[in-house]
Amino acid sequence: MQNRRYFDWAATAPPDVPLPRESGVFPWGNPSSRHREGREARDALEDARNRCAAALGVPAKYLFFTSGGTESNALLLFSTLFRGRGDILFSVVEHPSVSENCRVLERLGKRISPIAVEGDGRVSLRTLDAALQKNPESRLAVIMGVNNETGAVTDLSGLINRIRNRGGAPVHVHGDMVQAAGKIPLDLTALDLDSASLSAHKLGGPRGIGLLYCRNDLEPLYRGGGQEGGRRPGTENTAGAAALADCLEQRLNPVTLGGEYEAASCRWKTLIQTLRGMDRCSLIPRDRGDIDPRFSPYILQAAFHGIPGEVMVRTLDDAGFAVSTGSACSSGKGKRPVLTAMGVDEKTAFEGIRISQGWSTTAGDVEALAKAIGEILKTL
Amino acid sequence: MQNRRYFDWAATAPPDVPLPRESGVFPWGNPSSRHREGREARDALEDARNRCAAALGVPAKYLFFTSGGTESNALLLFSTLFRGRGDILFSVVEHPSVSENCRVLERLGKRISPIAVEGDGRVSLRTLDAALQKNPESRLAVIMGVNNETGAVTDLSGLINRIRNRGGAPVHVHGDMVQAAGKIPLDLTALDLDSASLSAHKLGGPRGIGLLYCRNDLEPLYRGGGQEGGRRPGTENTAGAAALADCLEQRLNPVTLGGEYEAASCRWKTLIQTLRGMDRCSLIPRDRGDIDPRFSPYILQAAFHGIPGEVMVRTLDDAGFAVSTGSACSSGKGKRPVLTAMGVDEKTAFEGIRISQGWSTTAGDVEALAKAIGEILKTL
Repeated sequence: MQNRRYFDWAATAPPDVPLPRESGVFPWGNPSSRHREGREARDALEDARNRCAAALGVPAKYLFFTSGGTESNALLLFSTLFRGRGDILFSVVEHPSVSENCRVLERLGKRISPIAVEGDGRVSLRTLDAALQKNPESRLAVIMGVNNETGAVTDLSGLINRIRNRGGAPVHVHGDMVQAAGKIPLDLTALDLDSASLSAHKLGGPRGIGLLYCRNDLEPLYRGGGQEGGRRPGTENTAGAAALADCLEQRLNPVTLGGEYEAASCRWKTLIQTLRGMDRCSLIPRDRGDIDPRFSPYILQAAFHGIPGEVMVRTLDDAGFAVSTGSACSSGKGKRPVLTAMGVDEKTAFEGIRISQGWSTTAGDVEALAKAIGEILKTL
Repeated sequence: MQNRRYFDWAATAPPDVPLPRESGVFPWGNPSSRHREGREARDALEDARNRCAAALGVPAKYLFFTSGGTESNALLLFSTLFRGRGDILFSVVEHPSVSENCRVLERLGKRISPIAVEGDGRVSLRTLDAALQKNPESRLAVIMGVNNETGAVTDLSGLINRIRNRGGAPVHVHGDMVQAAGKIPLDLTALDLDSASLSAHKLGGPRGIGLLYCRNDLEPLYRGGGQEGGRRPGTENTAGAAALADCLEQRLNPVTLGGEYEAASCRWKTLIQTLRGMDRCSLIPRDRGDIDPRFSPYILQAAFHGIPGEVMVRTLDDAGFAVSTGSACSSGKGKRPVLTAMGVDEKTAFEGIRISQGWSTTAGDVEALAKAIGEILKTL
């Protein structure tokens, strides 16, 4: 089998945190059952919640296990239907699990309006102010922590500070932190976020388990047996919750995270410098620096003049490298709304590819990728 | 550690089908990615869907993977909001993931009305006709295959035949088959069901994965990256889907299922005869036979005169036996709506316990349980 080098960590990470069942006996009872098997499962579930809470530095009572990042975003958004909060602001670069659900909420009577981004793909105080001014009745603002296509890191602290200080009715701020967690430092409390979404499989954990952190009232998306404090019904995925806790403990550890961030930055610096030296390559945005605090060192968007992104993805795949165009969730739709929102011209957007790395990526992987791209540019 | 005998299979089954990852390398890529890792994951996901389809005898295109039975029921029910179907009928003995969501739909403007049950806990042609007559505008009827508290088996074939033959606008019939699948013979096509819900963890599979079979148009509950044909977004739980396929292949195999059904019936006959011999025991319903085709031989509801169900559950738990009162999802709420709907008096309902078995239950387990109950009745 071909030696593969994986550069699509933003789509999913290679699993490195097993489900606890795989590593021994795990309480398998239904946490809602009153007997011993049930109580042991309940204890395991609450232990997982407490460990997630400790890793995130938030109270356990604000954490709700879901099936993943998409459901976490949907749960928070649809909660506004019953809670009767006012208008919804969301950045134009949000993941479809935010933007598409906002469009459904609009059909159901909510007023929604976008927050524009600057050319670097980031919401700024200027674009935030413009959105707030246009929609003073906004009661919910959704702004992602790290963009999944460009790696743009939002200055959430500054933006939230502005939102809090403008007076008037409070605005709930939700952060999609799926691409931020485990990659850049994350302090939900210091950020003053009201809610945040996380997913296990982006962190090396299993599919089908995620978290919604929410410190304000939350209405369930659908109902059932009243699990998760009535906010998210269905027999609890205890093993998945424990695996997510393992992921967060491992990846959010400041020492681990700091060391990995440094190493990722170093690898990305090499890659960015090499790509910048190729005259058919445009970084997106063009002014992205080698080491640039505006961007996560785990994601890079670049376009290659004259080569459609899909062709580059396929050619690299044949050469043993997994990269993508936009998000996996949007693949095949042929549109690049995130790049368009940044003001990238249509042709360049069409040529864009996303390269994303993780904690087991090596300098050798990056070197091999850069070399392969160089070879491809000679022939295509 | 105490030797435990588990009689709460209706809450969850002891896991006996591992996730494929546990038994070797499994495609872990994001099925929406275009590269090899993605394509392999897509192939594995569609292979799982095809295997589920073959086991169920339905086209694969009608199967949507969800996070479990609760979400499957919710997805189908909320689909009616956008599809604009008329009134909703649902039996009074449905699981909370049906009844509670119907109440939400009512708040959102749908007219809902209950279908009563007979004293044996089953919807009959008589109660169905009464409901249809009261609500001729009904376009959705939700009737479970096997009741999770009493084991009552619905004559879905007869009821659906009546619904189809009444003329007028078509009625979509949804069956919650969570307690039916793998326990009693199940032929979705022969039953002429329009949709059905299944859950893996009731079948020995992992938590967090379920199926919705739906042959009619389906509107998603929430949106995102367009996975599952746009009906259920979120990065697909490929390993969970494969484990569910393993469960269905194993448990729905007619030979296996038939043999297990016979063995379960035999064990239940012994248990029912023994319990009937205890003068403080009332079976629920009272006329449940030793071998009674109206009931699943995997679930039994019984009340013990003078002993609250919660006390019996605790006392049996201390003696090494896991049983429950109602569904795990309703535990702690102190209400027994299913029993009340059957006309069981309040005192007896309060004394009811649910005993449920599975494929690894033995005659020795049942004998030990009956003996333990006998001992308890001497002292309590």
